[in-house]
Amino acid sequence: MDSEQLREHAHKMVDFIADYYKTIENFPVLSQVQPGYLEKLLPDSAPDYPEPLEHVLNDVQEKILPGVTHWQSPNYYAYFPSNSSIAGFLGEMLSAGLNIVGFSWITSPAATELETIVLDWLAKALELPHDFLSTGQGGGVIQGTASEAVLVVMLAARDKMLRTVGKDALPKLVTYASDQTHSSLLKACQIGGLNPELCRSLKTDSSTNYALSPDVFSEAVSRDIACGLIPFFLCATVGTTSSTAIDPLPELGKIAKARNIWFHVDAAYAGSACLCPDELIQDRSALIQSLSTNPEYLKNKASQGNMVIDYKDWQIPLGRRFRSLKLWMVMRLYGLEGLRNHTRNHINLAAYFEELVGQDPRFKVVAPRTFSLVCFRLLPPANSEDINKLNRDLLDSVNSTGSVFITHTVLSGQFILRFAVGAPLTEQRHVDAAWRILQEKATALLGSL
Amino acid sequence: MDSEQLREHAHKMVDFIADYYKTIENFPVLSQVQPGYLEKLLPDSAPDYPEPLEHVLNDVQEKILPGVTHWQSPNYYAYFPSNSSIAGFLGEMLSAGLNIVGFSWITSPAATELETIVLDWLAKALELPHDFLSTGQGGGVIQGTASEAVLVVMLAARDKMLRTVGKDALPKLVTYASDQTHSSLLKACQIGGLNPELCRSLKTDSSTNYALSPDVFSEAVSRDIACGLIPFFLCATVGTTSSTAIDPLPELGKIAKARNIWFHVDAAYAGSACLCPDELIQDRSALIQSLSTNPEYLKNKASQGNMVIDYKDWQIPLGRRFRSLKLWMVMRLYGLEGLRNHTRNHINLAAYFEELVGQDPRFKVVAPRTFSLVCFRLLPPANSEDINKLNRDLLDSVNSTGSVFITHTVLSGQFILRFAVGAPLTEQRHVDAAWRILQEKATALLGSL
Repeated sequence: MDSEQLREHAHKMVDFIADYYKTIENFPVLSQVQPGYLEKLLPDSAPDYPEPLEHVLNDVQEKILPGVTHWQSPNYYAYFPSNSSIAGFLGEMLSAGLNIVGFSWITSPAATELETIVLDWLAKALELPHDFLSTGQGGGVIQGTASEAVLVVMLAARDKMLRTVGKDALPKLVTYASDQTHSSLLKACQIGGLNPELCRSLKTDSSTNYALSPDVFSEAVSRDIACGLIPFFLCATVGTTSSTAIDPLPELGKIAKARNIWFHVDAAYAGSACLCPDELIQDRSALIQSLSTNPEYLKNKASQGNMVIDYKDWQIPLGRRFRSLKLWMVMRLYGLEGLRNHTRNHINLAAYFEELVGQDPRFKVVAPRTFSLVCFRLLPPANSEDINKLNRDLLDSVNSTGSVFITHTVLSGQFILRFAVGAPLTEQRHVDAAWRILQEKATALLGSL
Repeated sequence: MDSEQLREHAHKMVDFIADYYKTIENFPVLSQVQPGYLEKLLPDSAPDYPEPLEHVLNDVQEKILPGVTHWQSPNYYAYFPSNSSIAGFLGEMLSAGLNIVGFSWITSPAATELETIVLDWLAKALELPHDFLSTGQGGGVIQGTASEAVLVVMLAARDKMLRTVGKDALPKLVTYASDQTHSSLLKACQIGGLNPELCRSLKTDSSTNYALSPDVFSEAVSRDIACGLIPFFLCATVGTTSSTAIDPLPELGKIAKARNIWFHVDAAYAGSACLCPDELIQDRSALIQSLSTNPEYLKNKASQGNMVIDYKDWQIPLGRRFRSLKLWMVMRLYGLEGLRNHTRNHINLAAYFEELVGQDPRFKVVAPRTFSLVCFRLLPPANSEDINKLNRDLLDSVNSTGSVFITHTVLSGQFILRFAVGAPLTEQRHVDAAWRILQEKATALLGSL
């Protein structure tokens, strides 16, 4: 860790990464390699002696990049984009450079305190009630992923309920969510030892635009209580994965409150305007009671005196990076106005794409667009081919060009194409180009029928 | 994400970080700030408009660094060190630069395939049997932390046992480990919905150097079976947190095998010569059965055709970074010989410190040193003060100098000082200086009695 060698090598890496961004449009956005391609290109054991950085960077260029799917390409519209930014990259560099492990306050007071401060900034920017601030009963913590966020909250809810009804009741606990809820909820149930059959996946359809109906939820709860089961957790979503549906929070929250059910809101996508994954919680004590450990070798005066937050007790792992540096730098280097503009820009580009689709009678937009995701499909000719197959073929045909990457979902049994705007480099000309490819491939497919 | 702005700003950040390493010895290694120091220095909401990078870097220097405990300082001997390296830093930069989310093979084939390849390299470097390689029934995956590693393995073991004995048996499952086992095991039990009272913490003492006795384990299992309970999981440790004790793997493994108990080996510290946290598993199918999800929006041909690994099914989160780049760069830029030398060097420095302690009759080494941790304490004068208080006072006195940071543990009721060598910049002169401070503070304390 010699400082001058670090300087020399890291400057080379900066240039390598900047050159990558300069040429990112030259790569096929969806990697076109075949399974197993890389083992043919690399040795089958580690070298005994050091190799120069140049050799490794050459290998990255020649062997690794062809196998990369370029999430930061302006032509990336798959899943939900994972936005990069210069500020975010600088924050990651600094976090990797300081390389502290911030499990307890004392292991780097600034890591804990900056995280508390910037999550209060975030709660204020979101205009959340005072309950969610660190100065109230709540507070925030940056989780590694959205999956961990829902898991830790479910564990807090599980243990809070079991403290009331007794721990033998674990097999009777019931979780509720719509059938549009992210798969991480079911995974959290499995991890937490909950009965997966009591993880209720409540049916939605186009009549509510795939949002959870309060009546459906309320009836399910009543039925379960009548059977002697114990409803304990409701996960509502603002911006579902398939179609960015929005569950009706006020109505659902009212029912949950009346039934003493923990009410969790998953905004992993729609909240990304606000730089999730993080988890803001209204009552931090339940979380800490579920996740705290206090072995001798971690004891210290500040922790024992209850003077500080130890974020190890708010998450699954013990170890944690100095994560707040990234969020702090993003907020400061762009400002809230800059972040709002960035989000608005994506939404405008999605609205523009929706308009393009609407102008071509061969296509149909199949779910209302709220944020920056457009759900659409190609319609078959009157004599009617299999419409699902037609769209699956269109998806494969478009993605195999390497010029654009989109993904799909299924809504009410229909195979749907998803066009998710959000890669930071995407401009209107990229959306135009993507639409041209979709149209061309559609023409070819329809012509071949 | 303009490539030229990225280049310009990232070069500045490189210089900031290199300068930090150049001056790292000027900071107190253990931060000396008081709880709440940072909120007095920062505004209470995010800025609306962008600020220049220079302002942020100034704030890092003036406001953040005083609150950092410098894990990479050569004077850091606390907990277990978290080794940084230039290669590791470059790997993190590249991973942050490409910024892919590698949950399924298709989301970046190279991320999955490189991880499989380098973990096979690692298994070979560790001389593990073929079972642990991806070409056998096993394989490796890089977990975010050691806590996640033990959790995912416990979930796999739990569900494997429940498939045999029925899921209603969850409250009867028993976990075994010594009382020296890391707290992450108990946390994993809590998360997995296991009965925490059946997480057996088997007593150890100095007669086995704090290793788990096979007889004690065997008797506990027999007793539990006689009570109608179901033993399912044994966690043995190579290099415990308090004193780097080594549990006797062959004897414990034989008992576990005979009783059909999943045998997990935690080598998070001693394996760090081999760049953990990662998790090498002999039978990957149990892991995947516990952790896989397959929602429509993630389906793709390569996954459906079982042609590839999807690491989302080997871990708690869905999302994951391109983590293998870091391990790959470390292995290539240092070579296995370089890594072995690095580890040997730390062990030699710890042996040197042990020798220094042994030469001063006021001190005593209290557990055998195997790796790079020395456990020792200051002895009280003949008329006998409270020996635990004496050592606690010595710890506080030494750490408050800011010139060195060490931590403690408790073994058999005795408060013990831990001197863990492993920060990458530590040289013999730093060990000498640390020992001089310990001696001076001991002299002062003993004189004041």
